[in-house]
Amino acid sequence: MDIGGAGGGRGTRTARERLVVIGGDAAGMSAASQARRMRGPDELEIVAFERGDFTSYSACGIPYWIGGDVPDRDALIARTPEEHRSRGIDVRMRTEVTEIDVAAGRVRARDLDSGRETWTSYDKLVIATGARPVCPDMPGSGAPGVHGVQTLGDGELLLGSLAAADGGRDGRRAVVVGAGYIGVEMAEALIKRGYEVTVVNRGAEPMATLDPDMGRLVREGMEGLGITVVGGAEVTKVLTGDDGRVRAVATDDAEYPADVVVLGIGVRPETTLARAAGLPLGAYGGLLTDRAMRVRGQENIWAGGDCVEVLDLVSGQQRYVPLGTHANKHGQVIGTNAGGGYATFPGVVGTAVSKVCDLEIARTGLREKDARRVGLRFETVVVESTSRAGYYPGASPMTVKMLAERRTGRLLGVQIVGREGAAKRVDVAAVALTAGLTVEQMTALDLGYAPPFSPVWDPVLVAARKAAAKVRAGTP
Amino acid sequence: MDIGGAGGGRGTRTARERLVVIGGDAAGMSAASQARRMRGPDELEIVAFERGDFTSYSACGIPYWIGGDVPDRDALIARTPEEHRSRGIDVRMRTEVTEIDVAAGRVRARDLDSGRETWTSYDKLVIATGARPVCPDMPGSGAPGVHGVQTLGDGELLLGSLAAADGGRDGRRAVVVGAGYIGVEMAEALIKRGYEVTVVNRGAEPMATLDPDMGRLVREGMEGLGITVVGGAEVTKVLTGDDGRVRAVATDDAEYPADVVVLGIGVRPETTLARAAGLPLGAYGGLLTDRAMRVRGQENIWAGGDCVEVLDLVSGQQRYVPLGTHANKHGQVIGTNAGGGYATFPGVVGTAVSKVCDLEIARTGLREKDARRVGLRFETVVVESTSRAGYYPGASPMTVKMLAERRTGRLLGVQIVGREGAAKRVDVAAVALTAGLTVEQMTALDLGYAPPFSPVWDPVLVAARKAAAKVRAGTP
Repeated sequence: MDIGGAGGGRGTRTARERLVVIGGDAAGMSAASQARRMRGPDELEIVAFERGDFTSYSACGIPYWIGGDVPDRDALIARTPEEHRSRGIDVRMRTEVTEIDVAAGRVRARDLDSGRETWTSYDKLVIATGARPVCPDMPGSGAPGVHGVQTLGDGELLLGSLAAADGGRDGRRAVVVGAGYIGVEMAEALIKRGYEVTVVNRGAEPMATLDPDMGRLVREGMEGLGITVVGGAEVTKVLTGDDGRVRAVATDDAEYPADVVVLGIGVRPETTLARAAGLPLGAYGGLLTDRAMRVRGQENIWAGGDCVEVLDLVSGQQRYVPLGTHANKHGQVIGTNAGGGYATFPGVVGTAVSKVCDLEIARTGLREKDARRVGLRFETVVVESTSRAGYYPGASPMTVKMLAERRTGRLLGVQIVGREGAAKRVDVAAVALTAGLTVEQMTALDLGYAPPFSPVWDPVLVAARKAAAKVRAGTP
Repeated sequence: MDIGGAGGGRGTRTARERLVVIGGDAAGMSAASQARRMRGPDELEIVAFERGDFTSYSACGIPYWIGGDVPDRDALIARTPEEHRSRGIDVRMRTEVTEIDVAAGRVRARDLDSGRETWTSYDKLVIATGARPVCPDMPGSGAPGVHGVQTLGDGELLLGSLAAADGGRDGRRAVVVGAGYIGVEMAEALIKRGYEVTVVNRGAEPMATLDPDMGRLVREGMEGLGITVVGGAEVTKVLTGDDGRVRAVATDDAEYPADVVVLGIGVRPETTLARAAGLPLGAYGGLLTDRAMRVRGQENIWAGGDCVEVLDLVSGQQRYVPLGTHANKHGQVIGTNAGGGYATFPGVVGTAVSKVCDLEIARTGLREKDARRVGLRFETVVVESTSRAGYYPGASPMTVKMLAERRTGRLLGVQIVGREGAAKRVDVAAVALTAGLTVEQMTALDLGYAPPFSPVWDPVLVAARKAAAKVRAGTP
């Protein structure tokens, strides 16, 4: 093992500082890019380690690549290693950091091809190690034809498997395990590729990030698209055929034949390195940071993206919300701070949008059970409205659920299920949550109105009116 | 002239109160309906006078009816007189109120068919007299083939005129005078009906509710749709042919041949009655009210809709913003208060959305000149982004302009011109304006992200980031 590398260890340090970034995706490379914008190569050396083959890609886009909406893998890559290098960031691909030595201010990295290990010292460190998929611990999950969809590599393997299964047969069947965002988006992708799709989900209804009554609407919408949704069912094993490939998945009660299986059971923070280094982790296993995205208790280590927990501004508690949009914001904040500036990430309100074909799904803030968990009492309303004026062509139905705190009337959360124009309406509620508006205040919001865009009372306003009335009526 | 009517004057009043509503459209009938919800017929008699033939219709929908998106007139009628009557509202159609006697608490109304006049006393009065079109004072503006588009009756006349002009000829030409919301929406309607459309506008660029740099984008978009846009040109007369019908409009410099002319020059508050009654009017000629929509200085008179001025929450000044969405909110507030409850309309932030075919246009808050007028200094940014992730099919370009106050960084206004998904994004800014957020705070907004709905940095966030940087850089 070498000591030194990357232009010299502590012993040879010049006045120039070195920023080391672990992880070459959204948070890490946003941080590196922003730090580079703040400080030139004369002042700051930036070294980024990435164990995979790609930098700065949109994992969120993988289902659309698989489904054929996005033509090829490279469309999902926002910036290649070469592009980063041309901006003065020393990206080391296929190089896995295996240890963080906080006391000495250095990281050990292994070149995955040569196996060679090197220590690299840092003045400032960014941990952006991302997430790892929840791997179901069941027999057969490693069989050919069973796929995760976390990385571009996963996507390529899945496409290969689909191409093999496509070989001339009709009635190809796919099973998606899990009905969260990844699960429902992959269901769309596989429907588009002509598969018969069955989604097997542990919860009674899909989209556990929604309340079950709204999840039911998602299930009905998915069933309307020809997707079979099996709820309350845990896949316990993958069954293989004589050729060793998957042929079905099994729950305790039933078997679901499958030419291809996609695992969409969610992710956990990838914090093995951080844990070994003694850095502070939260209840979800994510790194804990302050508002400037500095790892708690550390002056010169920042963390962001899918490996950190974030503050939920509505509940006041820590949450784990692995989303690309947060990762990018974290990177921006970290890069500014690591570059000598000042920026903060105040927290999230829990906004997420998704779709299955033309069915749009959105949520922000607290679900009923989230509110209960932090001791909040609330009123709930569910309203039916339309995306456009009722008389305007293309007006489509939309269901809006709204939670407001009792007595104060403060907005607590919104969930929307509908068609065109439904999902992004949740942004209004996201801003209202951030600002701490009450549902009564929301009734007067000056939202854009014209017949092609909204009924004269926007669906969010209709919900706010009903919620405000319920708060006024006042359950004791 | 009768004294009494409507079930008896003051002399015969029972314990039951009488609410009189002047104007049977959005504000008036929303107020009546809400008052009815608050109090039953035993407690409150409700009499509504409407001089026209329709109640509760969507004037905003007229361009889409003319353009053929909406099949017929009746689709635009939310509630007929009969429906209101069945809910216990005594609607008097084709009956024009000709005088408000505030001292005596009564109104005089004329039956337009019989010419008979009647006094009706009130305990509570709602003035919802709406707006009247700005009528250009020019020769020929009354010629057949020249049309306003304020009312359903106007729409019917225009459709008749179009049907006449449609008679077998190709190359039919329409001129729209004015390039505000009505003008651009009518340009779309006429394009859809196969007309060659010329829009003649006094301002240099269309959409004076936008800054000229954004108006230019609208013009370019309209030109791309085949619409001829003539700016900086005032129509001074309408030229007629031998048949007396319009044949062209003329400015000082040029003539524009026209089979049909549509006037879309905007509206003013219809407050003739209120003025005669000595009620307080503002600089725009609209009634002045308090937050509960009570006419200033009056205990039992409310006013709402297109005949009132409203508080602009961003500038702190009174404005005139005739929009159906405000009228409906006013009606709701008035009906609650007149029904013995309590509700307020805090004001507007100036949100408006529109479209010309697939070109979407939105604005909220202050334009540059609005900000200057109230002594605010500001930073301005204009950013180009897309409606969806760049790699996702259908991603379309979008231009976002943002104004932020110097020093404080408070958001002052947003204007958006783009395609699908552009207009309603302005709602995020509308809520941020209402909450008084700074552009720095906006950079951290937790807006919905998924590739079909947004780039990973929503266009509004991109603008906020740039604006925040400019505020930090700090023009002295």
